[in-house]
Amino acid sequence: MLNVSNVIDRLREVMADPAKLQEELNTYHVADLADIFEELKPDERLACFKLLELEKAADAMEYLPANLQVELLGELDEETASKIITKLPYDAAADVLGELEDDESETYLEKLPHKFSEEVRELLTYNEDSAGGMMNPSVITVDCDMSVLDVLNYIRTKAENDHLELYYIYVVDKQNHLLGVVSLRKLLTTPIDTLVEDIMISDIVRLQVDDHSDIVANQFMKYQYNALPVVDFYNRLKGMITWDDVHDLIQEETTEEIHASAGISNAVDEDEILSGNILKAFRARVPWLFLTLIGGFIAVNVANRYDHALHILPVVAIFMPLLIGLSGNICIQSTTLMVRGLSTGQVTMRDALHHMMRESLVGLAIGGLFGMLVMLVTITWKRSIELGLVVGVAMTINMVLATILGTLAPFVLKGLKVDPAVASGPVITTAVDILGLAIYFTLVSAFLTGW
Amino acid sequence: MLNVSNVIDRLREVMADPAKLQEELNTYHVADLADIFEELKPDERLACFKLLELEKAADAMEYLPANLQVELLGELDEETASKIITKLPYDAAADVLGELEDDESETYLEKLPHKFSEEVRELLTYNEDSAGGMMNPSVITVDCDMSVLDVLNYIRTKAENDHLELYYIYVVDKQNHLLGVVSLRKLLTTPIDTLVEDIMISDIVRLQVDDHSDIVANQFMKYQYNALPVVDFYNRLKGMITWDDVHDLIQEETTEEIHASAGISNAVDEDEILSGNILKAFRARVPWLFLTLIGGFIAVNVANRYDHALHILPVVAIFMPLLIGLSGNICIQSTTLMVRGLSTGQVTMRDALHHMMRESLVGLAIGGLFGMLVMLVTITWKRSIELGLVVGVAMTINMVLATILGTLAPFVLKGLKVDPAVASGPVITTAVDILGLAIYFTLVSAFLTGW
Repeated sequence: MLNVSNVIDRLREVMADPAKLQEELNTYHVADLADIFEELKPDERLACFKLLELEKAADAMEYLPANLQVELLGELDEETASKIITKLPYDAAADVLGELEDDESETYLEKLPHKFSEEVRELLTYNEDSAGGMMNPSVITVDCDMSVLDVLNYIRTKAENDHLELYYIYVVDKQNHLLGVVSLRKLLTTPIDTLVEDIMISDIVRLQVDDHSDIVANQFMKYQYNALPVVDFYNRLKGMITWDDVHDLIQEETTEEIHASAGISNAVDEDEILSGNILKAFRARVPWLFLTLIGGFIAVNVANRYDHALHILPVVAIFMPLLIGLSGNICIQSTTLMVRGLSTGQVTMRDALHHMMRESLVGLAIGGLFGMLVMLVTITWKRSIELGLVVGVAMTINMVLATILGTLAPFVLKGLKVDPAVASGPVITTAVDILGLAIYFTLVSAFLTGW
Repeated sequence: MLNVSNVIDRLREVMADPAKLQEELNTYHVADLADIFEELKPDERLACFKLLELEKAADAMEYLPANLQVELLGELDEETASKIITKLPYDAAADVLGELEDDESETYLEKLPHKFSEEVRELLTYNEDSAGGMMNPSVITVDCDMSVLDVLNYIRTKAENDHLELYYIYVVDKQNHLLGVVSLRKLLTTPIDTLVEDIMISDIVRLQVDDHSDIVANQFMKYQYNALPVVDFYNRLKGMITWDDVHDLIQEETTEEIHASAGISNAVDEDEILSGNILKAFRARVPWLFLTLIGGFIAVNVANRYDHALHILPVVAIFMPLLIGLSGNICIQSTTLMVRGLSTGQVTMRDALHHMMRESLVGLAIGGLFGMLVMLVTITWKRSIELGLVVGVAMTINMVLATILGTLAPFVLKGLKVDPAVASGPVITTAVDILGLAIYFTLVSAFLTGW
């Protein structure tokens, strides 16, 4: 694999010599160039980017994250920037222009060739989280009464346009309604006088322009096609989505799922949480922490109700962190298993009861073992069988309840149409803390201090 | 999207009538059938599976999870099972046979056509987590002195073999060394008398048979090709990997990352944690919990050292859950951001210092705010300015330290070549608990109880 650090050191050595720099840059794949550009300082990045041929610059642009695309376009003169945009596929161009301020993108749109800007304008009308916002409108379509030879000849003239991706050929009627699909493979292995309608598949998996990106990702993961057609409400073909668009999407969704489970709000962009204004990071992180704070005060209040017990036997206090730490952790394990399972489809709502039963057993086994260990250690250490029994029994009960609650919460949230990933975050563990302390102090006051 | 529950209800109504059942089953896409089969009871599943045509049964088999593949093959007579295996692509067949016991898979291998079993046997020699273990050995290769027309004719005869996937045509020399690649698109849009060597790309991104699946996934995510060639140490072409193999892989790796961060060991298969023997779930979950237990006892010990303080002022005990809860949560936020960023490439080792600084600032801002809130609430509630000050200051210090530790740990682990995902799990939060209690009690004894 490419060692980006080494490459950058080498580039910096020849940075003063444009000819050498250009020669060096041209030896890399555009995906590698994008990785390299991400690590360069802004002025170095611009200097290198300007040395690329237009075609290669546009290709590299596609691999760059949105913030760097905007940065580079802003630094180039408008002429060059427009030329690069025109070399992008429509969907990539729409993505870049969608990142700019409205008046800026308007300036570029006016400079672009008419056909191009029309296509991009239409794409910009779709919600960016919808199939319409992700699709590429350039699709090769053919009539069903064409022969394989006609199609091959048609492709030969049509696909010279560099932005056409060739996976499947879509068959449409005169009003552009989607009738069927033929794979290139089928096309290349069928006698050339066969009619398209005789080899096309008409039970087509298709996406609607308004389908949310979650659905898009699910359909791709399920059917494992390289590309899916996108149609409007009347089944008119509007574009197609290819798997590489979906890859980025799946990665983003996974990041959101992981962040949600750590109580990081997805209302703020990942980029901005990591490197934007500190206030953005603050806004993403405070809300769930604040809920934890409230939960924490409830826990404090629970403990406070037993301050007589604490007065009589202060030693019981020192076991609090152990009890809530372990119940919290076993709860997170169960929640994580369910949330991830629900998200990959490994776990379904139908299985809820089965998993509840199973996790309870697991909780009982682990809680039983750990309760025993804690009891033995406490008895040996503090020389009090009663204290050991109370701490050990509290540990077992807490761990079992934590497992059950941790398993239940994702199903309940999903049933309520709330993203279950938020359950594995701070909220459910805080609830487990509160419950755990209540149980512990109830046992303490019943068996140790006589309250 | 397909509503699997409804379909299953409908299937159950016609279960007694094989003809109707078969008719109904034939209306579904194989990917849908796989989803449906997963939800059926074993005997229903077998009954439905037997009604599928061989071709469709094999296609559906590919979409099923490994445990169901093994279950179905075991229930079928060996004759039918062998026929279905022969309809699978080599790599899928190797995956299925790899799941069986050695003597069972040997029985099948002996029944398969010689060429088929040879290919599968070779695949089985590769580690299943390597490029060799994932690749499909059927690749269309051509010589560089063939013309485009020659290639098109060759494909027409060759690709009738149903298992060949057509994305790129690989160009090799007489000893099968990989020389270049031509996309189908290029082939279809170039004059037919052009020589392959004039249109092939020779700077090819390629995988080595021994490359670990992590590398495979990274290369696909980075270069976004539909397929990558796999070569041996001497650059001889051995097979190719297609993006749909990688999709499953990426999903599995993400699951492992998420599980690791919740302290669930990846030594046990996800399937088995969720639905296998309870002992497997126990084995996956106990190790990290056990470490937490040890950490918990250290925390107990820290608190115990201050039992004089607890005797004098038992009320300080009730703030422990609040303090460790919030520091734990802010720590998990930072760790999660870094671990996920490192995994997607959004964060790199070079940025470690930058992120440390930035996260410290975020920790200071949030910790400052929360410390203030806790102080005010405590002063109002407990009518003690000293207590409020100590709790508030401890909260701020703990949250800042938790942020710094949570940010640092993933970089340190990655530097030590340990999977940073394990850092966001129980271990780092337990460390934060211990540190937090030590700081709190130090402040308590210095300013409140005079110890």
